Amino acid sequence: MPVPTIEWMGGVDGCVRMIDQTRLPVELVFLECRDVPTLWEAIKALRVRGAPAIGVAAAMGVVLGVQAVAGDAGAVRSAVAKTADYLATSRPTAVNLFWALDRMRRVAADCGDRPPEALKQCLLDEAQAIWEEDRALCRRIGQHGAKLLKDGDTVLTHCNAGGLATADYGTALAVIYAAQEQGKNIRVYADETRPLLQGARLTAWELMEAGVEVTLICDNTAGLVMRQSKIDLVVVGADRIAANGDAANKIGTYSVAVLASAHKVPFYVAAPTTTFDLSLDTGGQIPIEEREASEVTHGFGRRTAPEGVRVYSPAFDVTPARYITGIITERGIIRQPDLRAVAEHFMGENG
Amino acid sequence: MPVPTIEWMGGVDGCVRMIDQTRLPVELVFLECRDVPTLWEAIKALRVRGAPAIGVAAAMGVVLGVQAVAGDAGAVRSAVAKTADYLATSRPTAVNLFWALDRMRRVAADCGDRPPEALKQCLLDEAQAIWEEDRALCRRIGQHGAKLLKDGDTVLTHCNAGGLATADYGTALAVIYAAQEQGKNIRVYADETRPLLQGARLTAWELMEAGVEVTLICDNTAGLVMRQSKIDLVVVGADRIAANGDAANKIGTYSVAVLASAHKVPFYVAAPTTTFDLSLDTGGQIPIEEREASEVTHGFGRRTAPEGVRVYSPAFDVTPARYITGIITERGIIRQPDLRAVAEHFMGENG
Repeated sequence: MPVPTIEWMGGVDGCVRMIDQTRLPVELVFLECRDVPTLWEAIKALRVRGAPAIGVAAAMGVVLGVQAVAGDAGAVRSAVAKTADYLATSRPTAVNLFWALDRMRRVAADCGDRPPEALKQCLLDEAQAIWEEDRALCRRIGQHGAKLLKDGDTVLTHCNAGGLATADYGTALAVIYAAQEQGKNIRVYADETRPLLQGARLTAWELMEAGVEVTLICDNTAGLVMRQSKIDLVVVGADRIAANGDAANKIGTYSVAVLASAHKVPFYVAAPTTTFDLSLDTGGQIPIEEREASEVTHGFGRRTAPEGVRVYSPAFDVTPARYITGIITERGIIRQPDLRAVAEHFMGENG
Repeated sequence: MPVPTIEWMGGVDGCVRMIDQTRLPVELVFLECRDVPTLWEAIKALRVRGAPAIGVAAAMGVVLGVQAVAGDAGAVRSAVAKTADYLATSRPTAVNLFWALDRMRRVAADCGDRPPEALKQCLLDEAQAIWEEDRALCRRIGQHGAKLLKDGDTVLTHCNAGGLATADYGTALAVIYAAQEQGKNIRVYADETRPLLQGARLTAWELMEAGVEVTLICDNTAGLVMRQSKIDLVVVGADRIAANGDAANKIGTYSVAVLASAHKVPFYVAAPTTTFDLSLDTGGQIPIEEREASEVTHGFGRRTAPEGVRVYSPAFDVTPARYITGIITERGIIRQPDLRAVAEHFMGENG
């Protein structure tokens, strides 16, 4: 079932191999990134997307950035810094990007006195560790979240927080995969998720591949299916979560959360703890990327809006914690998230 | 400003000329319907759409249906019956279709003893009267609704309830046009309205033509712009309104209404009294058309969802009256609509 979204191929001189998600669902095409600009473009153009997968891609991108360095360890460290700064400009909202780059910078500092080839190997090991950890985190998220579902439940999700958004197993969809592995029959309504249709193109595709019954709806139909009592639970991913539990996720998530609240449908966010940005008190401080108008007006290869029309197209919105029934992480579930509940969740394991 | 959405050209032997709305906004193309099957297809394929415009089209379609009748008045009456029955199968939700066909049937009965050519003229006169009345009704809706707007207000609308949905002036957009004619500066956020993008293709187009500042958003962004306090009022059209004020309108309207309620934004429906179906106690009895899955999965000329994916694509949803701040008709505004308020509104003028 898990989809091999992104992988490192070979040794230090290898490359990043990823599914080009812009080509789905029409064809399953793999893109091999052998240099940093290609990887940067892949993140920017959403060939790889989803907060955890962006983190993995960025870490692997740092390895690409040091491959051609012929000098000493100082030259490698300087290439790490330059590459990390560059990759950080690709997309602003997903905190996993910055978290992964910070891990790579730290390795460059910690192993900075080794010979250049050993330092490069340390960097590759760290990128691989981030990838491996992501796979493990997602499975633990699935285990915790699956407890919320009983046989026969129907789940609504928005955008894609599946295998394609992570190394291979997903966050929101991990909950469904884990429930399915426990023998529960779970059905899914997938919001198509305009403008880039990650729900239609990616979520529907990977759920069908995994043998999960999925029904595609337009985003504007989410309220109706809740009113029809078709939905037992909503689960979505997140791109960044503030210390008080406010969660940034794909545009439209906020509307789904308000609708879920109005229909008394539990609304869960599933994300690894690496998606938390505890330096931000509230979601109001999360930077929100705005996308090109053409994604709305020409999103399908032809023009569907008047020339020159004004467009407002934020890539994300922030759902206030009060609309979130719980946040499912690899450590468990933060119920009724707020500053205190989030803090206790983080202290729980470390303290 | 008014857009000539649909017109009868010439005398009894003339034709129906309409904007082919499936070609907007890329090109403004007029379609001439010279027979009933062409007109039926135009309604079915949404070349002409919007409850009042469908009513006008159906009435004119009945005239097309009698043109070739060479027999006596009985043959004309029988062609009216046959044509009306056929046109009634085009789309099930907009009550104006059935209302207009009933008016044509009644004329056929009332003028049934006239010579066939005179009967045909009566039918054309009735179709023209329906068209003229729609123009007048829409202007009165605009006058009543414009009182709700003050200079500088921003309105959110869903789908297209503009000139393109009526003979030429609109219902929801009539409110904006009338306010603009009063010298008020009104801005609009238009939901693009998946799957067929009437908001992007039609509402944005006709507002730009009319010099109204319009910002296009994806449907899933409506909640966010309300949360950002950008919206002073929501106004939408309707396809059928039950006796208790429950209103069927384009899919997604219900979600917008719930979101408006959650953000304390007034939510108005604008529709002529011909859109009421007082034979239905509640909106639960309104038949809801389901559309082809391909409109969601292939809506832009190429496939954007997996082959064979299950799709749920109702064309409309029903907004319960409790979410509706008021219904603007040509007679005034039904505030806090319910069975009693609707009944009083109808008695007000007739009683």
